[in-house]
Amino acid sequence: MNILVLNVGSSSLKWQLIETDESRFAENADVRRARGLIERIGGEAVWSFRAGSGPAVKGTAPLRDHRAAVEYLLHWIVSAESGVGLGSLGEIGAAGHRVTHGGEQFVRSVAIDDDVLRGIEETIDLAPLHNPANLKGVLAVRAVLGRAVPQVAVFDTAFHHTLPERAFLYAIPYSLYRRHRVRRYGFHGTSHRYVSYRWRQLTGIPREKQKIITLHLGNGCSACAISGGESVDTSMGFTPLEGLVMGTRSGDLDPAVLEYIAVKEGLSLPEVESLLNKQSGLLGISGLTNDMRELLAEAEEHDDRRAWLAIELFCYRARKYIGSYLAAMGGADAICFAGGVGENAPAVRAMICEGLEFAGIRVDPAANHAHVGGREGRISPEGATPGVWVIPTDEELLIARDTYRVVSGIENRY
Amino acid sequence: MNILVLNVGSSSLKWQLIETDESRFAENADVRRARGLIERIGGEAVWSFRAGSGPAVKGTAPLRDHRAAVEYLLHWIVSAESGVGLGSLGEIGAAGHRVTHGGEQFVRSVAIDDDVLRGIEETIDLAPLHNPANLKGVLAVRAVLGRAVPQVAVFDTAFHHTLPERAFLYAIPYSLYRRHRVRRYGFHGTSHRYVSYRWRQLTGIPREKQKIITLHLGNGCSACAISGGESVDTSMGFTPLEGLVMGTRSGDLDPAVLEYIAVKEGLSLPEVESLLNKQSGLLGISGLTNDMRELLAEAEEHDDRRAWLAIELFCYRARKYIGSYLAAMGGADAICFAGGVGENAPAVRAMICEGLEFAGIRVDPAANHAHVGGREGRISPEGATPGVWVIPTDEELLIARDTYRVVSGIENRY
Repeated sequence: MNILVLNVGSSSLKWQLIETDESRFAENADVRRARGLIERIGGEAVWSFRAGSGPAVKGTAPLRDHRAAVEYLLHWIVSAESGVGLGSLGEIGAAGHRVTHGGEQFVRSVAIDDDVLRGIEETIDLAPLHNPANLKGVLAVRAVLGRAVPQVAVFDTAFHHTLPERAFLYAIPYSLYRRHRVRRYGFHGTSHRYVSYRWRQLTGIPREKQKIITLHLGNGCSACAISGGESVDTSMGFTPLEGLVMGTRSGDLDPAVLEYIAVKEGLSLPEVESLLNKQSGLLGISGLTNDMRELLAEAEEHDDRRAWLAIELFCYRARKYIGSYLAAMGGADAICFAGGVGENAPAVRAMICEGLEFAGIRVDPAANHAHVGGREGRISPEGATPGVWVIPTDEELLIARDTYRVVSGIENRY
Repeated sequence: MNILVLNVGSSSLKWQLIETDESRFAENADVRRARGLIERIGGEAVWSFRAGSGPAVKGTAPLRDHRAAVEYLLHWIVSAESGVGLGSLGEIGAAGHRVTHGGEQFVRSVAIDDDVLRGIEETIDLAPLHNPANLKGVLAVRAVLGRAVPQVAVFDTAFHHTLPERAFLYAIPYSLYRRHRVRRYGFHGTSHRYVSYRWRQLTGIPREKQKIITLHLGNGCSACAISGGESVDTSMGFTPLEGLVMGTRSGDLDPAVLEYIAVKEGLSLPEVESLLNKQSGLLGISGLTNDMRELLAEAEEHDDRRAWLAIELFCYRARKYIGSYLAAMGGADAICFAGGVGENAPAVRAMICEGLEFAGIRVDPAANHAHVGGREGRISPEGATPGVWVIPTDEELLIARDTYRVVSGIENRY
């Protein structure tokens, strides 16, 4: 079945067309038929598409809204010039959407009907930036492909619905949880779930025996403690602001800092929160960039003090989370790195694991440096436990497979 | 030398009179001559004093301010009825004050002169609740005993001045640190420092080789990673709000929760901060009490769900901090419990250490239950590393000794 996978932002749309079915799952034989990105929707949009592993084609087009963007990309897919090889839109069997927040209501991927749409709307309060855009994507596909093409919502929070109370409750008045659902939700669930599944596939260790720590290190970053195949703790919280140092987000912070900054800088609370989300993290410390590649280059080539400092804070915080999740689970079998930084920055992986020998964690320098650019595998020496792994994440693949399973009524247990 | 030790709050004053000198340090032969507490200063104050290990005498007195309170307690000390045995105020050689916040300026205990007073005033911004009261105490003693009696400030932040940048900086714009000194300061420094010193004394392990984690668990709670006798990380941050679950404080929290609560509950930011400081923690989760003894009783006698939940969150958070500091230091030789809960709640100590066997941490049930009510010693089985210890803290003793050392010009290295 051809699945259109969509990750819709307020003015952007990332998509893939993946052909998959049950027999392909087992053999990892899913076919990446096409992919693309449209940005600046609402004005003169900029797009970049490619069929299979072909070259990217790029262009601009006036796309006034998400519906126009969906029309545009579907038109390209079925065009002869694209080379995707789809005869008509009728060959698209379903659409799968990444939906940021499922609240406490959505604990797995679901077929989108009017009830589900209402449910996602009710959760807008918890994800005011993301869920409305996700909804626009759903409505755009419905408008263009019609109601007959099933759509599936894959929630970024769902994997974390297994967190126990001790991990998801904050130590604030319990009434704030009852009344307003203030709790840890966690995000990046699709990524942590994919890495967790893939590690089991690579090692042959069954779900029940799995005890690993996954680190999704991209522009957003989060850590996840996974026991018995289930998320039991994670570093992002009520929002994606909490936890690790990220590209532009502060992660953990004394909550009392907010008022102090507000008073000292003459900012409103929403302005402070925006500063913590957009001007902090690697960018805030270095004063230079949120891009780890640039930081590493600046640190190594010019020995820039604040670039080093940003990298050091980033790695130290991640190391502490590994320690904290080892304690939470009573040890682990593996540490798995994923995400743009996790998959491509051996220096960062090595620095994060420094000093963790007390827990048996070691990194083999040669293996570490060899695992970049999408190469998957173990980077710890033979026999070292916990093992250290690089597992390139693939959220789109998981969304495509989930969509296929939901549409086909297959039980979903991975 | 007789040292008057003072811990002055906005309407309270805790004091001890301790006789100490260099030879007494070595033998732990300091003499506790008297101690007491005055509350509700500013109106009809309530006091409770005792000489040596004698019975407490109690009473009320109209004490309009801190100066009146200091006059009152000194008058009692030298009175014949008190039984303290001091002939005159002239026998008090010095006064030592607990001062909450020393900012970045004060990295050790110092003799209080006008410059120091100004320095503490400049730090009021960082500790608006505590430093003004501490200053009142200093001025009250100066007014009553005169300038000739030296006074020493012992800062609750000073022990943490050795934190490296990676541990004290937040991942927020670096300019906020430069301009407004927003950083992790840490508190409970006198307690962590005492426990650290005492552990070396008990084990004979030299300062350079020391690598321990101390947990001060009282109504306020904090953890500290100590390497080479120096604090290298601690859980309280810019204020005492961050870190562990406490009696009424939330500890760690997604910073984005503040705005959500403010909007949903119609509160101002200072009101939200007050809620996080005074209505959260054990009290907030249980909806019952901030007192761990009551919670344990309620949990055990009535199997109260939310009492259990509060205890579980408390222990789980502490366990994660142990893991995180093991990772920060590359392992440790000991975990040391102190503070009212740490010294008197074997059940809590056992729950915190549960699941830490992967790191070698074990608790001997009999030893654990035997160490309550001020009993000091190891509660892990013989030979287990890291060892687990109960070390009743003694901030007043450390303040008295520091005061003696500063007044006598002795170098202070513990």
